Amino acid sequence: MSKGLVVLAYSGGLDTSCILLWLKEQGYDVIAFLANIGQDEDFDAAQKKAEKLGAKKVFIEDLRSEFVQEFIWPAVQANAVYEDRYLLGTSIARPCIARRQVQIARQERAQYVSHGATGKGNDQVRFELTCYALYPQIIAPWRIPEFYSRFRGRKDLMEYAEKHGIPVPVTPKAPWSMDANLMHISYESGILENPKNHAPSDLYQMTKNPEDSPSEPDVLEIDFAKGVPVRVTHVKEGTSKDTPLELFCYLNEIGGKHGVGRIDIVENRFIGMKSRGTNLILQSCILLMKCCGSLSLSLSGFWYSPECEFVRHCIDKSQENVEGRVQLSVFKGQVYILGRESPKSLYNEELVSMDVQGDYDPCDASGFIKINAVRLREHNRLQGAAQKTL
Amino acid sequence: MSKGLVVLAYSGGLDTSCILLWLKEQGYDVIAFLANIGQDEDFDAAQKKAEKLGAKKVFIEDLRSEFVQEFIWPAVQANAVYEDRYLLGTSIARPCIARRQVQIARQERAQYVSHGATGKGNDQVRFELTCYALYPQIIAPWRIPEFYSRFRGRKDLMEYAEKHGIPVPVTPKAPWSMDANLMHISYESGILENPKNHAPSDLYQMTKNPEDSPSEPDVLEIDFAKGVPVRVTHVKEGTSKDTPLELFCYLNEIGGKHGVGRIDIVENRFIGMKSRGTNLILQSCILLMKCCGSLSLSLSGFWYSPECEFVRHCIDKSQENVEGRVQLSVFKGQVYILGRESPKSLYNEELVSMDVQGDYDPCDASGFIKINAVRLREHNRLQGAAQKTL
Amino acid sequence: MSKGLVVLAYSGGLDTSCILLWLKEQGYDVIAFLANIGQDEDFDAAQKKAEKLGAKKVFIEDLRSEFVQEFIWPAVQANAVYEDRYLLGTSIARPCIARRQVQIARQERAQYVSHGATGKGNDQVRFELTCYALYPQIIAPWRIPEFYSRFRGRKDLMEYAEKHGIPVPVTPKAPWSMDANLMHISYESGILENPKNHAPSDLYQMTKNPEDSPSEPDVLEIDFAKGVPVRVTHVKEGTSKDTPLELFCYLNEIGGKHGVGRIDIVENRFIGMKSRGTNLILQSCILLMKCCGSLSLSLSGFWYSPECEFVRHCIDKSQENVEGRVQLSVFKGQVYILGRESPKSLYNEELVSMDVQGDYDPCDASGFIKINAVRLREHNRLQGAAQKTL
Amino acid sequence: MSKGLVVLAYSGGLDTSCILLWLKEQGYDVIAFLANIGQDEDFDAAQKKAEKLGAKKVFIEDLRSEFVQEFIWPAVQANAVYEDRYLLGTSIARPCIARRQVQIARQERAQYVSHGATGKGNDQVRFELTCYALYPQIIAPWRIPEFYSRFRGRKDLMEYAEKHGIPVPVTPKAPWSMDANLMHISYESGILENPKNHAPSDLYQMTKNPEDSPSEPDVLEIDFAKGVPVRVTHVKEGTSKDTPLELFCYLNEIGGKHGVGRIDIVENRFIGMKSRGTNLILQSCILLMKCCGSLSLSLSGFWYSPECEFVRHCIDKSQENVEGRVQLSVFKGQVYILGRESPKSLYNEELVSMDVQGDYDPCDASGFIKINAVRLREHNRLQGAAQKTL
Repeated sequence: MSKGLVVLAYSGGLDTSCILLWLKEQGYDVIAFLANIGQDEDFDAAQKKAEKLGAKKVFIEDLRSEFVQEFIWPAVQANAVYEDRYLLGTSIARPCIARRQVQIARQERAQYVSHGATGKGNDQVRFELTCYALYPQIIAPWRIPEFYSRFRGRKDLMEYAEKHGIPVPVTPKAPWSMDANLMHISYESGILENPKNHAPSDLYQMTKNPEDSPSEPDVLEIDFAKGVPVRVTHVKEGTSKDTPLELFCYLNEIGGKHGVGRIDIVENRFIGMKSRGTNLILQSCILLMKCCGSLSLSLSGFWYSPECEFVRHCIDKSQENVEGRVQLSVFKGQVYILGRESPKSLYNEELVSMDVQGDYDPCDASGFIKINAVRLREHNRLQGAAQKTL
Repeated sequence: MSKGLVVLAYSGGLDTSCILLWLKEQGYDVIAFLANIGQDEDFDAAQKKAEKLGAKKVFIEDLRSEFVQEFIWPAVQANAVYEDRYLLGTSIARPCIARRQVQIARQERAQYVSHGATGKGNDQVRFELTCYALYPQIIAPWRIPEFYSRFRGRKDLMEYAEKHGIPVPVTPKAPWSMDANLMHISYESGILENPKNHAPSDLYQMTKNPEDSPSEPDVLEIDFAKGVPVRVTHVKEGTSKDTPLELFCYLNEIGGKHGVGRIDIVENRFIGMKSRGTNLILQSCILLMKCCGSLSLSLSGFWYSPECEFVRHCIDKSQENVEGRVQLSVFKGQVYILGRESPKSLYNEELVSMDVQGDYDPCDASGFIKINAVRLREHNRLQGAAQKTL
Repeated sequence: MSKGLVVLAYSGGLDTSCILLWLKEQGYDVIAFLANIGQDEDFDAAQKKAEKLGAKKVFIEDLRSEFVQEFIWPAVQANAVYEDRYLLGTSIARPCIARRQVQIARQERAQYVSHGATGKGNDQVRFELTCYALYPQIIAPWRIPEFYSRFRGRKDLMEYAEKHGIPVPVTPKAPWSMDANLMHISYESGILENPKNHAPSDLYQMTKNPEDSPSEPDVLEIDFAKGVPVRVTHVKEGTSKDTPLELFCYLNEIGGKHGVGRIDIVENRFIGMKSRGTNLILQSCILLMKCCGSLSLSLSGFWYSPECEFVRHCIDKSQENVEGRVQLSVFKGQVYILGRESPKSLYNEELVSMDVQGDYDPCDASGFIKINAVRLREHNRLQGAAQKTL
Repeated sequence: MSKGLVVLAYSGGLDTSCILLWLKEQGYDVIAFLANIGQDEDFDAAQKKAEKLGAKKVFIEDLRSEFVQEFIWPAVQANAVYEDRYLLGTSIARPCIARRQVQIARQERAQYVSHGATGKGNDQVRFELTCYALYPQIIAPWRIPEFYSRFRGRKDLMEYAEKHGIPVPVTPKAPWSMDANLMHISYESGILENPKNHAPSDLYQMTKNPEDSPSEPDVLEIDFAKGVPVRVTHVKEGTSKDTPLELFCYLNEIGGKHGVGRIDIVENRFIGMKSRGTNLILQSCILLMKCCGSLSLSLSGFWYSPECEFVRHCIDKSQENVEGRVQLSVFKGQVYILGRESPKSLYNEELVSMDVQGDYDPCDASGFIKINAVRLREHNRLQGAAQKTL
């Protein structure tokens, strides 16, 4: 008799293949769910493999459009990529995947959801907080002693795979792990664990090495409305994209061609060093807008929390008037702003101008400064600070 | 009879030369004070010019070392360059210059200090808040109607200069204004006032155009102690600098050679667009450290306020353990972190490792996640949110 | 020929009566505008006096309902009264008065608005920032040298009044000034300027001295919806109020009877000591709800700024679920919460209970604590802090 | 053979007596540690009881002075009692107790520390985070299934006690639990778990019911230096206290006599309702000083964290000039500030005065206001907001 039905977030790789089999061994029925969020994967092969491993059903779903529109765009509006750009590529994909996984679990009347995230990472937190918000029961094999005592390393997984006819990767594993989606690829662990080691140059997959990238820039124009890009145009070639997914992929293509977005960071958490190849071409444009730091926190797993709902609501409001066009040049790993314009800008050229007086009386600045100085002068009078500091 | 003695912050340029003369015309005695904070200037020529214009005394002083140690380093410790990198190059020089100017005023028993900052900019605010904190009396000609009504543009200044034998620049003025010091050059006004206009390529003075910069990176190692750089070493060439001023200038040299630090921004204030050529090579290294945003505010003029003194004290404390070495590559306008190490790091490779368990029990993460999810589940239970969001 | 038409914020008192006359002397036509925001005033007498002084028109308007609904309620939602309770009584009335004054100026095609706030206070700032946001031209006599040099004190105003037939108060002025509205009375200046002086007991007008207040509490029930009170009920007497104005006035009546809401504070600004008699009976109830501190800042004059509009929008959203009933006892200057209930509370008695386990596993707390301690242990390991601190 | 030596935080009550015995049953040797932090307890009886239960050693230590000086005073400096007054009474005692417990464990070479905090409360977190920061091994019986499955309620504990000769309380347990120390008593759980229930009047132990408190106020003078009280004087009686412990106890005595400090709150966490009888007489005085909110967070368990050490360092600095004298009246549950003075105040009576001009030019305020209004006017111009809002 079955212990129940599990919807497993399945990647097609060694770990989740072993988990699929192990769950069946433990007496569960398993549905495999594989979300396409822009990673480079042979989805057909993954489907066949899951079926062969005994998955009761296999769901392979293209979530790329909703990922861009419902998750990446709010992060862009919030400038979250700027505040904490290294984290979000991974973290923001979790609520998108988990939401669909829970929908499938509901629809298939499954009792459990499961995943292959390790017991030391941030991913387990992001994934499970979303699931707990939406669904009660989770199986996390990498935190179950029976599982992690049995599979102490890649070798154990490979032996188990071989024994059970799971196709084993023939190429030796890269000495790091990788997380890829539309927004980024991050690399961590293995030889990267020592923060002093340089990241090897063959690590990067999405971005050209700036040393080998074109010696001519590409110039793009991006139109924004309500704080998100609504069109990108290649000025010279005239190419233009205006659906969210195409637009985002095109920015990735141009950014990748010029090596934009490589960073090598040490995260604040206890998780490890990450080195990334993501195309953060949007970042520089976004610098134009105001930022709301608290979203970045909320994105790290608390997407379906009351505070994150509240913050998204507020940010929507704050972005109502963020509208305009930015022209930028992409070259050798950099994005250079060339010019910008907005129909709703508070920028008033005449007011600003050093040559025209506009509706502005310089004498007012005297009062402004003197009132600001009142407390400084009192402070100084009392401290005799002038004497002290000079 | 003299109306009193004025110490004028004199730049050697057209504006402050005219102000010097105008102050004398108004009946003041004038001492010219010109601070060397790293700008490109013929100080001897400036001295002679000031004398010729009738300055009672001329003080030309090299403040570069104290500028780096007492003003730039605290900003680096505070990551202030990161939070608000465009503003600080100019703003942080003001308290350094104004402090010395007030010292001279005290020493020479002058009744007034004066400056040539315009009535629309931020500089007047920064400059005068420092002065008011330390000294009571300021003459700001650009906010005195008699002055600004008389000199309505550059043409008026040039006519006045010619009439009074002030050497007039023979080269036509660049169609923008410029502020330079060790930390940066910023350009604003003129043709830059329309934010849509591209900055012309001959504008930049400190940085090579990345299109023309070397096609080979330079690799540097920077050692930090207490949150500030204490040595920079060119890995291949073996060159090494360890006094603050030499170290900073060397970073500028390497950064300039590779076109690092160009940004084109629109400031939040009513001041205008700025386009800069500064060498912010330090910035990327500093990203490694924690940031204290409030200093950036304080630096914009409130250096001698109680809150800024307090914040500097706190930041000093926070930086006690910021120590270590960063290796980085400078290339085509970018700084790439290659590796980093610190004897005082909380980073524990074994704890972090995905391959070694270390002193860490994966089961703990289950409890951690579940406790964090308690309120999310309650929220969901009450809202029936699962139904709503799915 | 008239210099133009001015709408003057007229109080009926000595200052604004003199200003009315002085404006006419200067050649302006004057419309007097007196807002009823709950202060104790003989509005008929004020009207006759303004007419007698030569006002072209007199507007006396009851703004109490809109003051409660559009200004006090948002402050209550934002817990602004809690964060900064002393300031808001005065500051929050300004945008309400100034908005109506600007409407009248528009409607009457007046060129100017004017007020009698002094040149040292916060009121001028609040008032004028609102006016500048909505209307361009302001006359502030207390900052016009011709005015303030002529009227150097109360004696000058009284002589001027007598000379021009303005009825002069026969009772000697209290040795302090006063600002009253529905929300509060604040007292400042005069003998209160020395912060060491005790406030005299005959100063308070809205609140009974707790030493003389009833020796029996009154018990009230307040129902909240969307973060604001919607009904108050006197439990024993059964009295009940449910329109905003009546409800607010009733809370004032009960609070005043029991001496609730007296505070004596020194403000942070350069303005002076204030001693208040306001009925802040609502405050304690509001402690139950979350607070958004930034509103208090915005309320001090920036009501019609983009950031304040944004914050009000966000707070509205945050208060959607703030609903329920609070029972409280009012006695001897205090408000005691007796009990509270909410249909939308996240509070789950079974989950909380120490006697029932509910859907909660105590073991989870071990993991939660241990994960939180990971970095503390690392910190300690590195610092050898245990040795140091023990 | 012993499983090891445990230092148990022992209270003398039923729970920790049972835990002591149970630990021995499980094979541990137990040292009982009871800290006197101001609770009402028969320490001799507790000592004898622990010995009778088989404790290897019993440590009973008076930590009251260090509790006031090293824990309460920093919280007072930080205004932590104001920001979050309900939480701190309990939370701030934990690091004080746990620090000494760890010292004893070190000195006695014990392998473990243990406590009787439940698995649902905040106390376990505060206590254990301190211990983990300083010492590695903790036994928390209320989170060990063998323990909490065996003792499902008070009845099980009493039966176990009787069976093992533990003296069982003869009086029926109050229908709530209690936590007492110098700073406060908090009551929670039992009949208090329903937030609608009124707290019974016989619950409060430290404070007189304001209905029965004296009908004459007591007037006190408190002197502050570096942000903490250094002397309290009863103005009429002349009584004066100046050691921290005596001073604090005297404030408690006067506050208790007048019923000061009763609050009834619902905490934000998942813990329950608390109703307290603490004497927060200091609170009102402290309102005079600036607040640093972040400490309150740190105090809830993270006392020995790097951020809390940093915050304490900064607060020390910020309090250097907080010096002066406050006169206040204590009456019927309230503290009224009567007056205050400080030798280091920025308060300048002449500057503030409405009757004296001082070193202040009212015209400056015009410039100050106009510059602040620049962006509001631009905003309005763009939005046509005047039309919209009126």
